[in-house]
Order: sequence, then C-alpha cells, then structure tokens
Amino acid sequence: MIQAGLVGATGYTGVELLRLLSRHPRVSLARVTSRANSGAPVSGMFPNLRGIVDMPFSDPDPEALAECDVVFFATPNGTAMEMAPGLLERGVRVIDLGADFRIRDLEVWSRWYGMDHACPAIAEEAVYGLPERNRDAIRRARLVANPGCYPTAVQLGFMPLVESGVVDCDQLVADAKSGASGAGRQPKQHTLLAEAGENFHSYGASGHRHLPEIRQGLVADRGGEVGLTFVPHLVPMVRGIHATLYARLRESSADLQALYEERFRDEPFVDVMPPGSQPETRSVRGINTCRIAVHRPEGGDMALVLAVEDNLVKGAAGQAVQNLNLMFGFPETAGLDLIAALP
Amino acid sequence: MIQAGLVGATGYTGVELLRLLSRHPRVSLARVTSRANSGAPVSGMFPNLRGIVDMPFSDPDPEALAECDVVFFATPNGTAMEMAPGLLERGVRVIDLGADFRIRDLEVWSRWYGMDHACPAIAEEAVYGLPERNRDAIRRARLVANPGCYPTAVQLGFMPLVESGVVDCDQLVADAKSGASGAGRQPKQHTLLAEAGENFHSYGASGHRHLPEIRQGLVADRGGEVGLTFVPHLVPMVRGIHATLYARLRESSADLQALYEERFRDEPFVDVMPPGSQPETRSVRGINTCRIAVHRPEGGDMALVLAVEDNLVKGAAGQAVQNLNLMFGFPETAGLDLIAALP
Amino acid sequence: MIQAGLVGATGYTGVELLRLLSRHPRVSLARVTSRANSGAPVSGMFPNLRGIVDMPFSDPDPEALAECDVVFFATPNGTAMEMAPGLLERGVRVIDLGADFRIRDLEVWSRWYGMDHACPAIAEEAVYGLPERNRDAIRRARLVANPGCYPTAVQLGFMPLVESGVVDCDQLVADAKSGASGAGRQPKQHTLLAEAGENFHSYGASGHRHLPEIRQGLVADRGGEVGLTFVPHLVPMVRGIHATLYARLRESSADLQALYEERFRDEPFVDVMPPGSQPETRSVRGINTCRIAVHRPEGGDMALVLAVEDNLVKGAAGQAVQNLNLMFGFPETAGLDLIAALP
Amino acid sequence: MIQAGLVGATGYTGVELLRLLSRHPRVSLARVTSRANSGAPVSGMFPNLRGIVDMPFSDPDPEALAECDVVFFATPNGTAMEMAPGLLERGVRVIDLGADFRIRDLEVWSRWYGMDHACPAIAEEAVYGLPERNRDAIRRARLVANPGCYPTAVQLGFMPLVESGVVDCDQLVADAKSGASGAGRQPKQHTLLAEAGENFHSYGASGHRHLPEIRQGLVADRGGEVGLTFVPHLVPMVRGIHATLYARLRESSADLQALYEERFRDEPFVDVMPPGSQPETRSVRGINTCRIAVHRPEGGDMALVLAVEDNLVKGAAGQAVQNLNLMFGFPETAGLDLIAALP
Repeated sequence: MIQAGLVGATGYTGVELLRLLSRHPRVSLARVTSRANSGAPVSGMFPNLRGIVDMPFSDPDPEALAECDVVFFATPNGTAMEMAPGLLERGVRVIDLGADFRIRDLEVWSRWYGMDHACPAIAEEAVYGLPERNRDAIRRARLVANPGCYPTAVQLGFMPLVESGVVDCDQLVADAKSGASGAGRQPKQHTLLAEAGENFHSYGASGHRHLPEIRQGLVADRGGEVGLTFVPHLVPMVRGIHATLYARLRESSADLQALYEERFRDEPFVDVMPPGSQPETRSVRGINTCRIAVHRPEGGDMALVLAVEDNLVKGAAGQAVQNLNLMFGFPETAGLDLIAALP
Repeated sequence: MIQAGLVGATGYTGVELLRLLSRHPRVSLARVTSRANSGAPVSGMFPNLRGIVDMPFSDPDPEALAECDVVFFATPNGTAMEMAPGLLERGVRVIDLGADFRIRDLEVWSRWYGMDHACPAIAEEAVYGLPERNRDAIRRARLVANPGCYPTAVQLGFMPLVESGVVDCDQLVADAKSGASGAGRQPKQHTLLAEAGENFHSYGASGHRHLPEIRQGLVADRGGEVGLTFVPHLVPMVRGIHATLYARLRESSADLQALYEERFRDEPFVDVMPPGSQPETRSVRGINTCRIAVHRPEGGDMALVLAVEDNLVKGAAGQAVQNLNLMFGFPETAGLDLIAALP
Repeated sequence: MIQAGLVGATGYTGVELLRLLSRHPRVSLARVTSRANSGAPVSGMFPNLRGIVDMPFSDPDPEALAECDVVFFATPNGTAMEMAPGLLERGVRVIDLGADFRIRDLEVWSRWYGMDHACPAIAEEAVYGLPERNRDAIRRARLVANPGCYPTAVQLGFMPLVESGVVDCDQLVADAKSGASGAGRQPKQHTLLAEAGENFHSYGASGHRHLPEIRQGLVADRGGEVGLTFVPHLVPMVRGIHATLYARLRESSADLQALYEERFRDEPFVDVMPPGSQPETRSVRGINTCRIAVHRPEGGDMALVLAVEDNLVKGAAGQAVQNLNLMFGFPETAGLDLIAALP
Repeated sequence: MIQAGLVGATGYTGVELLRLLSRHPRVSLARVTSRANSGAPVSGMFPNLRGIVDMPFSDPDPEALAECDVVFFATPNGTAMEMAPGLLERGVRVIDLGADFRIRDLEVWSRWYGMDHACPAIAEEAVYGLPERNRDAIRRARLVANPGCYPTAVQLGFMPLVESGVVDCDQLVADAKSGASGAGRQPKQHTLLAEAGENFHSYGASGHRHLPEIRQGLVADRGGEVGLTFVPHLVPMVRGIHATLYARLRESSADLQALYEERFRDEPFVDVMPPGSQPETRSVRGINTCRIAVHRPEGGDMALVLAVEDNLVKGAAGQAVQNLNLMFGFPETAGLDLIAALP
C-alpha cells in the first residue's frame, strides 16, 4: 500500500478522488487537506463518504505531505506550482489535477491563466497525463499534469484522425457540451440551478482556457500546426461531457471504423462503439471510460466523431488514478473497475 | 398612467416585476434602481427584456423615487424599512416584496430576521397583502407587505378549512416544495445546478422564516391559536411551489369541494379544480393563479389539499401587481391576464 | 375577427397554438378538433387553458372546418395532405405545421417521409412559411408550409452568410441542440425523463428529416448547391433550440456583425445581439423571437453563429401565427407581443 | 458461485440487478431472459454493460431456469406468480421484485392489482423481504417478496416510532417523493421529460398500490391497526425517493435520536444521521443505503422523519441482492459495497 495525500479536497474533483481512492486496493489515504475546514470530518461535508472516509480534513502541512508517496493537487490554478517543487525534492510524486503544468509554452500559459509561472524548471519535466498518448513517459514521471476535462474528450476523439493524417487539420471543429459540475463547487451565478436549469447556451466562444491545451496535444499528434475551432456549451445536467467533432476527410477511401478500433484496441478506457452508434453521456457516468463513435454522414467527406466521458472521472479524478497506477506499476485498471448505473 | 419605481431590480422578483409592469396598461416604469449596476442597461443583464425595457439602472435616489406614485422594494430584508418612511411621508405608496413588514409582532420578527426593526410605527400600519383575506384593507393601504412565496400557497390552501373550523387546527401539516428560484439570484452553493440538480431534500426542518408568517395568517383566519408543522423542500426545477397540506377533519360530513368552491368563487386568481384533480406546478408557470384541489383519501377523516403557484408570480411579483391594482383602483386583473405555456 | 380551426390539437404544437390564438386580437377560435377526444373539454387535457379556452374538442368534420377562414394542421405527417385540397377548394386558407408541404422535390419528400404524396399539384403551390425569406409570397398564399423547428433556427442563422457569399458553402456545419418537447407528446422511450434526464447525446447522425428541408432553403439563398453537415442533439430540458453554426470565411475582411444587423434590421422576430454575446435558449422561451450572435473566434477564418429559438414558438406555433398575420393583412406581430419569463 | 437467472431484464430494476450481480463475488449470471429481445446482446440495449455482461437475452425457458440456484423476477405484476410455483417445486429459490407476493391478504391484493392470484398456497409461504424486520425468516425462505420502493423508505422511516409506541398510530402521514425511474421504462405520457421536467405534482392522492403494502407492514410493527395517509409525488429527476413522515408524539419525553440509533445500530444499510441533519437523495444514489434523520420541529409534539433511498437499489434491486445474501448465507453486504458518486 502506498500512502497518498490530497491537497484541496473540497471541490468536485477532490471528492471524486476520495471516492475512487477509498476503494483502491493499493492506496491508503494518508492526508486529506483543506485549510478552511481543518479538523472537520470529511464525511460531514460529503455525506456520500459517511462510513467510507473516516478522517478529518487537515492543514496542508508540507512536512506531513512529504511523508506520502504521492500527492494529488485538486486545487485552484496556481497552488500546485507553489507546493510541488518542495514535495518533488523530498521524493514525493505529484499529480496535479489543475492546470499549472499542462501547457509547455509558459508564455502561452501565462497569457491564458493570468499569472507568472512559479517553477519553470519543474514545469519542463512535467508529463502530460493522457495515457493514450504518453503512457511510457507517465510511467517514469515524477510530476504528472492531469489533462483538463474537455481536452481529454476532444483529444481522444480527434487522435486517430490527426495522427493518421486522413483529415484536413487546418479546419477542425470541436463543438463540446458539459454538465454544470465542470464549473466547480464554488458558488457562481451562471451555474445556479435557476440560471442553468431549463436553459442551454455556449460560453467561451471568444476563447476558452482549454483551447491552447487541446491545440498543443493535436499539434503533437500531427507533428505540425492545426487549425481548431472549439466552442463549449453548458448542459442542464450535473455530469458528463459530449464532444461532437468535425473534420474534413482528405482520403475518401479511409475506413474510419477500422482506424478507430485499431488505434484504441488495447486501451482499457476507450470504448469504440459499433458502427452507427451514438454514445450517451449517462453510459459513462461515474466511470473512467471514454466512449467514441465515428460517422460519415451521407457517405460524404466529413468525418463526424462523437465522444463522451464523465468530466469528473476520465476528465479528472479517474484519469488521475489511471496515471497513479502507471506511475507506481499497478495494474492500469486498479480501483477503476466501475460500472455506470443506468438510468 | 401612474409612475412606478422599483428598488432592487437585479434579483428574480425584480426582473419578474419588470416583465409584468412593462405590459401593464396603467403603469409607466419610471425608475429601476440598482446601486451596483447604475448606468448599465437593464436589458444587458436580462436579455428577455431586450426591446421591452429600454432604460438603464439608476441609483436608488430618494428624491427621484419620491416623484413616483408607487415604489416597489425587491430588496434584501432590512432595506425597505430604511427607505419606506421617507417615501410614505412624501405621499408615495409602497409595496415591499421583502419581509420587513410581514410580521406584526416585531419581537417575533426580530428573532427570525436577526435585526431590530427600523420603523415600528410604520410597521404597525402595514397591510399584509393577501387579497383573498385583506382586499378592502389593501385598497386603502399606503404600505403593503407582500406575502412570502410559501405563505401564499399554504395560507390559501388552508384558508377554507381553518376559517370554517371543520378541521382540528392544533395539528396542521404543510409539506411544501419549491423550485430553486425561490432561493434567489445570489450565488449560493446549495442551489448550484451541480448540487440541487438530480437531487431532492428538505431544508429548514428545524425552522424556516416563513413559519411565523404562515402561523400569523392562520391564527387570524381561525381567531385563535393553531399548531402547524411546516417543512420546505428543494425541487430540481426553476419555478413553482407545491404545497401538500394535511388537516384532520372534525366534522366528517363536511363537503370540502363545495367549501372551497364557495370560498374562492369570486377570486380572480384562485382556481379550485374539479374533484379528483391533482394540480401541476407547470400549469401556473408565469401566471398569477393559485390552483387548488381538495381530497379526502379513502373517504377518511384526513383533508388533503394540493395547492400550486408560481413562486415568482402569485408568490411574489404577480401578487404585488395585484395589490397595486387594488391600491390604485385598477381592475384587479390588469396586467395579469397571462396564460401559462405548456409544456 | 376571422374564424380559425385547428386540426390535431392534442400535441405540443397544438396546445401552443391554442395559447397564442386565444389571445389574438383578430382571431376567433371556431373549432378545435381531435378525433380521439371529441366531446371532452380542451381545458381538461391542458389545465393551463382553464378559463381561457372553454370549448370541447370536436370531430375533424370537413363541413364544419370549411366554414373557417383558416385551418391550421398540427397533425402527424400525412394528414394535412389528405384534407387540405378539399378545404382550399372551398376557399379556406391552410397553414400546415407538419411536413407535408415543406419539400418541393416530392421524390426527396417521399424518400425521407416514407409515403407517396397525396396531392402533388397542391404541393407545388405551397409557400414555405419562413417570413424572413418569403414574406411577399406568404402574403398571397392559400397554403403555407410552416417550417420545421431546426430548419427555422439553422436557416436564419446561416442566411446572411449564404446569401452574401462570404463563406465557403461547400462545408457548412450545423451542430443543433433541442429540448425534449421537439419529440412530441406521444410516449416514446427515449424521451422519458428517466432516459433523457441527466443525459446528453446526438441522434440522427446518419440523417435527419430536417436535413433536406434545411438544404433546400440554403440552396435557394445561395442560388446553387451547398454542402451541409447537420447533427441534432437532445438536451435535458423541455423547450428551446440552440444552433451552433460553423462556416469558413472566403473573405477575411467581412464585417459579420454589420452583415447580420443589416440583413435583419427590419425583422420583428430576429434579434441580432451585440458583439460578444452568447444567446441563451431561456431568453426566447415562450416567445416568437430568434436571437442570433455572430463570432469570429480568435479573429480567424471561421464564422461562428449562435442562434436560439423556442422550438414550439418561432419553431412552430408562433411562426404559424406570424404567417397567418401576413396572409390576412394583420400587423405581423399581432398576438405575438410576448415577453419571456426569466428565470 | 451460485447460478442466478433473471426473468424480465429489460426494465430499470432488471438492468440495475445486472449491474449489481455482475460484480457480486458469489454469483454467476446464468440466464438473462427477455422474450421480446431473445438473441440480442444485453449490452446492445444497455451500453453501460458493454464489456461487463457479455451474453444475449434468452427466452424465459422454464427448463433452463430450473437449473439456476435462484431466479429473480423483474417482471410486470402477474408474471412471477405464474412461473414461481414450477421453479420452487424444482428446488429453485425465487425473489420477486414485482408485487405478486407482497400482500398477505389476497382479497386486498386482488382489489388493488385487478386480477385473481394464480397460486394462493405459494403466496402464503412468501416472506416479505425487508431484512430490517424479517431477517431470520428471509434466511429460511424459498420465496421472497421484495418490497416496493416507497414501502421500503416509509416503513423503515416509521419503524422505530411505530414499534416503540411513542406516537399516535391513528394519524400517520407519509408525504413521499420519487424520481421518474420509479414509473418504469415503458413509454408513458406523464413521465416524458417534456411533461415531468420543470414540473412537480402529486399522483395517487386518491389511492396508490403501495398504500396497502405499507399499512400491512406498519400493522405488523405495531401489532394493531394504523391510520395512514400516503401521498406520492413525482420529482423531475431520474432516481431517488424522499419520504417526509409526520407522527404525533404520545410521550413528550421520548429521545427520538437515541430511539433511531438504537433500533438500527446493527443494520448495515440504514444510516441514522446526526441530529439536525437533512438527508439528500443524491447521497444514496446507486447504493443500498437508506439514510434517515429524525426531528422534532420547535421541540413540539410532532415527530418528523426524513428518509432517503435510491428507488432502484434499496427500493428494488439492491434489496433483492441483500435478500439473496441472506438466503444463501453470504455476507449481507456482498456485492453491495458501493459508494455514491457526488455530485
């Protein structure tokens, strides 16, 4: 059993990590920190953990955290980069569920996140934690930057098309939809039920922080520039992301179904559905799977990809556990053998 | 045309008043105030009012407000009692949609609202704006305390039973359910869509501010003490209140259907449904009607009343307009001839 | 006052027409038919119409209907084409809210709707009832084919781009989202709340009946072929359509905002929002407005259009009333001066 | 490993049983039947089971089912009573998730369910599968009648009050609320999202089939007659039941918190929450726990009990597995060590 710490446990990715880690066969939960709630029982804030997690929140004390084998950060952007260097120095591995280490170009990062980076040297060694692209590097990593929720679905959905070069990468379109939990647990007006319920709209049409992250990944897949339009929308539901992806085919003879099945054949958490399928977000609620279907409407030259994930699992906490499994040599599915409840 | 002012127009009762007043045939909207948004166009915050309300928010300047014939307060509790005396002195009529003037016993008021009352003398003359009980007094009132949302549904639902004395008033039960808009537009964690969506729970089981208000009304109806248990619940929807009311019959021969039909025969905004009906909240969405059905399960000695209203209309802004109509001698339904859209 | 009949009044477009017509200053509701519910009060099925529509459903008797000035069909596809010829012959004007007369190429129609057309000659004279394109023809029409819900939003959204030729019309993408009322009031498994609630998915990725209708309109706007990918999605809400439209710019200097404002300057029911806006479906709930915003993400060569409408109003019953107003020379906004309730 | 069969696997309780049984350490899923879908893969209908349940539906062949150790019926009422006798005769144990064996008085049963009972002798030996009341009898049972969803929550909530006699059992009130999955997967108009979404209403105010079942249980707990008013309501959500229970105290000195904690101290699936708590349905979503809080509003003579459960788990499939564990001597929590995902 390894000892795990969790910094910033009071948000949605935090409580989801607690759900997953508390049943992980190889992980013992050593410290769960929240400065504001130190001393209070975790299960008082999250009644789903009554009888499951029987410990209080504690202060994010670096000394105590340094005794862990791995520390997760489920903190607001800007926190992990302050604490990670000290932990790494003392031999602790770090998985950041925030955005501090996701963007390799720190100028780009600073522009989108509005702050200077606190540890550029460390940032350079961070491995982007998308196992379907970087599995080997993740195995060796001290510091993993866990991908954002939209970027996971959009990158996995485009990956076979972009890697194989069958599409025109200059005009990719990602029309993405997310449940309200993606906006976090901090009270905000636009995600009140009375605002977001019985309502639908886009946001970030003029630019969303996940755009540079997605672009960086697709550029890596292609080995060259890509043109991407990314428009996120808010769905009146709690969990789930649906990415509808459009790319123009350059080779009209491409067998897209075979391309996807082949690419993800050995991936434990990507499910390529049968031809003609249209995946539902609820089919992956609470589990670490990304389900993908690929279409070619009217047999034309447009590739249409439908990808669903749970934004808090494959889009956050579940992928973090998958990364942990790789980093520590555990079976990749350890603690993640979950079944979605339907309906 | 009378000139109306609205203080505190950025909450849900405020925008609902704007919707109703902007189509009122006898009212001209003179000033819409919001200290924080002064100068900004109203329709920028509320896009449903684009092309309808073409004015900016202004400061809540007492001098300017004094030029109105009537001023509505859709403000947090404690604001109206500061400004109302000055307006009344200058001949302006006031309708407070908050709670400052709802409770006659100011000690009780202070205990539940956690502050001292700023103008006890004025509070004494305030008329509780439930037309079905106080129509004549409202006609003559300078200052109307518009009822709370739950109190409107619960009082109307119980009224015939309590007035007539056919039930045991010592053990009334009001199990009430409300959509999330009842909690207001201020960001709060528990009304985030990700918290309140796909979820149901009670709140205020140990005491809710609407309890003393309801009790005061039922005591008036009965002419004596009443025993009431009131439990509100949060429904994952935007609008609507459903009150399920239970009272033990003292007279087993009572014809409850006739009692309700008779009591509300001339009420323009209470609809007693046919025997066996079960009203839906959506049937009153956006309109000023309270629909009521009365049952006697298995023909036993329990009276069961089902009452629905739109918490923002009959439970707030619509009732305020109804009160305005009474105060100014307009037809009671002026500006309120609305039809609910279904579905 | 003209006399109006409504055939097939038990679905969602039917009840929405009743809501609108019952307050129309120039229309008297003469007959509301439903074979299955003949004799039953309309307000028994639709409690929102209690006290508003006080008539029973009647049989769809052609003789009685022939006494109307206009007859609306809110029937399943295939019904209007059987009854319309007889009514037209007797001088009655007809507005079909179904799909019988929407597609000019009857071979295409038969392929998508799975039946032969019953009256090809009549079909030829039908006018497609999109006032923003065909206002003059509608004024003179005996028979109007009221557009589908998706086609209204998608055509209005693309119209300025396609008409002006500033975009590449060979690869248009329409990613559309609709509330569940679009699927109608007939019980179907996939629109049960327990299936569609807390869930999101596409449908019709391999082809939707609204695709040929949209294509026909865009071809007319362009005066040539267009390439269109159309993917509808089901949103867990009752009402509302959001169309997210993507088109590649051919002229990088185009001022899209001015283009849209100019095109729709005189349109009473199209609201072009200020630059940077992102319209919400709730802002048009219950009203006949289509709100549109146009963007150019990162200043690149992609035009992004966001268009929202209420699928049952501008996407069905409201547009039908707008067409009626044009056909009978009434003010175009008669009976349609509605305000959306927010929230 | 025991061999389990499931008759009627295409409804919500069926798919939930599949989810639970597929991870049960002591159970092997031998046959999953559906006459209408025989031959089709189970995971084609339920994509959440892709990669989990890899078998087709088969015909409900009695010979094949007789080879199972236990057969679950998740069928419409009236099916289990036809097939159970033959299976029992051949030594198969039976757990019926329908209502065929829940009511001991078959005259009452016939009145509420509208048919004659097919096997009165068998019905007599059926054990009502509420472990918190009948644990020992369930252990010895051949045939278990799994309780209804509302009856589970209402009986557990009232149990300590009624058993102990601290309340007046002549006027119990159960105001219950359920998500739409309780109405099943068969298409019905009133549970369409467009009908039940953004809406709230009661149903069955004049009598619901769960009333006699609840009454029978409370009578057993009390050892005498009880008076119960039971009003169910439909909540616009998928899963969850909330029962709000009211009972008048006869002994004002009763320590209700201690009473509940004591009564359920050893129950693995009843969680008595700390004083002042108000349980949320989401806290038990997908798990077999019933969470209960008990209040005494304003310190008066009314006991208020709040009980939540997942209608498809503790209210159906989970309780069925709990009963299976008891019948076969497995640990009572086997296969049921689940954690609710929050949010």
